Amino acid sequence: MVFHKFFKIQSDRRPTFHDVTEQVGEILAISGINNGILVVFSQHTTCSVLIQEASDDVNYWGTDLLMQDLVNVLEKIIPTCRTEGQYLHPGTKHIEAAAGREELPSWSLNTDAHLRSVILGRSITIPVEDGKMVLGEFGRIYFADFDQVRARERYVRVQIVGE
Amino acid sequence: MVFHKFFKIQSDRRPTFHDVTEQVGEILAISGINNGILVVFSQHTTCSVLIQEASDDVNYWGTDLLMQDLVNVLEKIIPTCRTEGQYLHPGTKHIEAAAGREELPSWSLNTDAHLRSVILGRSITIPVEDGKMVLGEFGRIYFADFDQVRARERYVRVQIVGE
Amino acid sequence: MVFHKFFKIQSDRRPTFHDVTEQVGEILAISGINNGILVVFSQHTTCSVLIQEASDDVNYWGTDLLMQDLVNVLEKIIPTCRTEGQYLHPGTKHIEAAAGREELPSWSLNTDAHLRSVILGRSITIPVEDGKMVLGEFGRIYFADFDQVRARERYVRVQIVGE
Repeated sequence: MVFHKFFKIQSDRRPTFHDVTEQVGEILAISGINNGILVVFSQHTTCSVLIQEASDDVNYWGTDLLMQDLVNVLEKIIPTCRTEGQYLHPGTKHIEAAAGREELPSWSLNTDAHLRSVILGRSITIPVEDGKMVLGEFGRIYFADFDQVRARERYVRVQIVGE
Repeated sequence: MVFHKFFKIQSDRRPTFHDVTEQVGEILAISGINNGILVVFSQHTTCSVLIQEASDDVNYWGTDLLMQDLVNVLEKIIPTCRTEGQYLHPGTKHIEAAAGREELPSWSLNTDAHLRSVILGRSITIPVEDGKMVLGEFGRIYFADFDQVRARERYVRVQIVGE
Repeated sequence: MVFHKFFKIQSDRRPTFHDVTEQVGEILAISGINNGILVVFSQHTTCSVLIQEASDDVNYWGTDLLMQDLVNVLEKIIPTCRTEGQYLHPGTKHIEAAAGREELPSWSLNTDAHLRSVILGRSITIPVEDGKMVLGEFGRIYFADFDQVRARERYVRVQIVGE
């Protein structure tokens, strides 16, 4: 059996981390699949899907402290892109192609997000046993959007294969 | 067909890397699945599962040199957490929640392990062909525990989907 | 249903990134699988598989600018291995074992590639819906070879599970 469903979240103009554990669990319940694997996937190349413990505490923006610690580490190795020339990408052809899609040049200044998200990965795969995801005592599923140039609607895709 | 089994390993108070290739291979043999995919998964949010070449040489602690090189790289970007205030997490609510679970405050000083492990990832997915994992000539499966605050028993979960 | 196929690419003596989206799509079409998951996997422990946006622009070597930005970030945290002693690995036993396989000692100076590739990951998993990979508007599949000591033929493995 294969089951697929997606839902949307709204990101902000800073790295955002949505706890989507409940929504994914509801999709698993609807699927009727009891044993197999469940994939949570980002179709966006500046986003990731992660499993992490919930922080309990949040910062003034509402971001889990553990996720802000992650952003702080990433900022050191992949600084936020503030202007063209800071990274090689986007080049002139890319900016032209973006203009053809009626995108502002500044919208392409998300190189940091492309690099951060590819290191964290585009998906997670979770065992399903007796109708439940095996996440341990503390595991939560987060959809991470590292893009800081635009607030956007994002697709969270769930694919379940099993019996 | 879906097959699931887990086993336990014992970590130490330093980053530990268990070569679990043999155990995973035995589970595949028991499953009777000849073609499909095999997922090795950590349900712990300070642990990862990796595929890497064996180092042949080990350091005085018995750690593969290649894994110690990995730890040395991670130490530069995510230093070992030695005291509160070094990272934002754990905050006061987290410490209170941990106290409610009868955990010592110092046990929550594993922020480095949460960050290191989420970058390395929680699972690996391996093709299965003719009853064998496709790992190439040198690929070995390692269960990595980055938590340095406690020696613990850890669950290594294997999920196989195929025919 | 399970379908497996591999193809080969030729790497160079620098980090190489092959866009394999078309080849993977052709394998999916041949498989006849309409819904499920598709895994693109590296059996090599110095290679990764990534999803990233195409850069449009390339550098003088023909490398996507976004991929060169990734290499530049990795170079800062995991410098290219130029001589023994720079990393712990390879140790003496490893060099002896390599000699037994008629490998030159310099071929083992790819510690940087082992470390870079394990952080990026060995595989990607993509949902398949109505016979198509769900890659969004911009997602492309890249096979990355981080090994800089030898130009080599590499296996790109595709495993599809579904119905």
